[in-house]
Amino acid sequence: MVDILHRVGVVTPSPEKVYDALTTVEGLASWWTDDTTGSAEVGGVLQFRFPPGGFDMKVLDRRDSELVRWEVVDGPTEWVGTTVEWNLRQDGDHTIVMFKHKGWREPVEFMHHCGTKWATYLMSLKALVETGKGAPSPNDVHVAYPD
Amino acid sequence: MVDILHRVGVVTPSPEKVYDALTTVEGLASWWTDDTTGSAEVGGVLQFRFPPGGFDMKVLDRRDSELVRWEVVDGPTEWVGTTVEWNLRQDGDHTIVMFKHKGWREPVEFMHHCGTKWATYLMSLKALVETGKGAPSPNDVHVAYPD
Repeated sequence: MVDILHRVGVVTPSPEKVYDALTTVEGLASWWTDDTTGSAEVGGVLQFRFPPGGFDMKVLDRRDSELVRWEVVDGPTEWVGTTVEWNLRQDGDHTIVMFKHKGWREPVEFMHHCGTKWATYLMSLKALVETGKGAPSPNDVHVAYPD
Repeated sequence: MVDILHRVGVVTPSPEKVYDALTTVEGLASWWTDDTTGSAEVGGVLQFRFPPGGFDMKVLDRRDSELVRWEVVDGPTEWVGTTVEWNLRQDGDHTIVMFKHKGWREPVEFMHHCGTKWATYLMSLKALVETGKGAPSPNDVHVAYPD
């Protein structure tokens, strides 16, 4: 089992805006993909769609301004059953975002791609909170093409 | 042992320019850090310096337009003994860069940071080859601050 791990620091006085961007359909649509639907409550399922396909994520857990956990319940075979975990904490004028996409069965080429792509989406989340404008799909940063 | 894995696709007709950017001091200085010195030949040591510190990398292996491998011989404790491996292959009009920073002993917070930061440097390498201009330190993309 192998994991994708990332960390960004978002300039913002409290974790609230980052947490909102991870726990509302409008927030998620503003940095990951504008085609986001579903329920962001615990037990709910979020549908994230991109031009090449997408993911359904069940919300396993959320704790105000601290934690969000999803399980991938539909999408590419390599993703199904993996979990995505966000931990937030405040450090001075930054919200530190610790990101884990856990439980990949093998370090396949697609996992390498997703590792880089997640980084660009985390930078989109950071930009959204800091500037009001993210780069969600279909206006996302391309790390290869098509991606 | 845990690894940082990434993949980018660089629009270029052959892997030659990417390989040059990984195997010459001038190339490395144009996307990773402008304070790069040393020898990029097999058995040589490269010194990469950034405002907060740096790394010395011994060149373990290189094969024209295919492979580069370094071992970290000096730098932060977490990095020493880890290896950095670049595999290149051509796929149509893209050079596919498969990147592995292997052998981290623990998935510490610093590893999360380095995972994100490597992604931004890979995007700098991609930009260098595609546009002639990368974003090496000290003009690198910040994923937190200081970083």
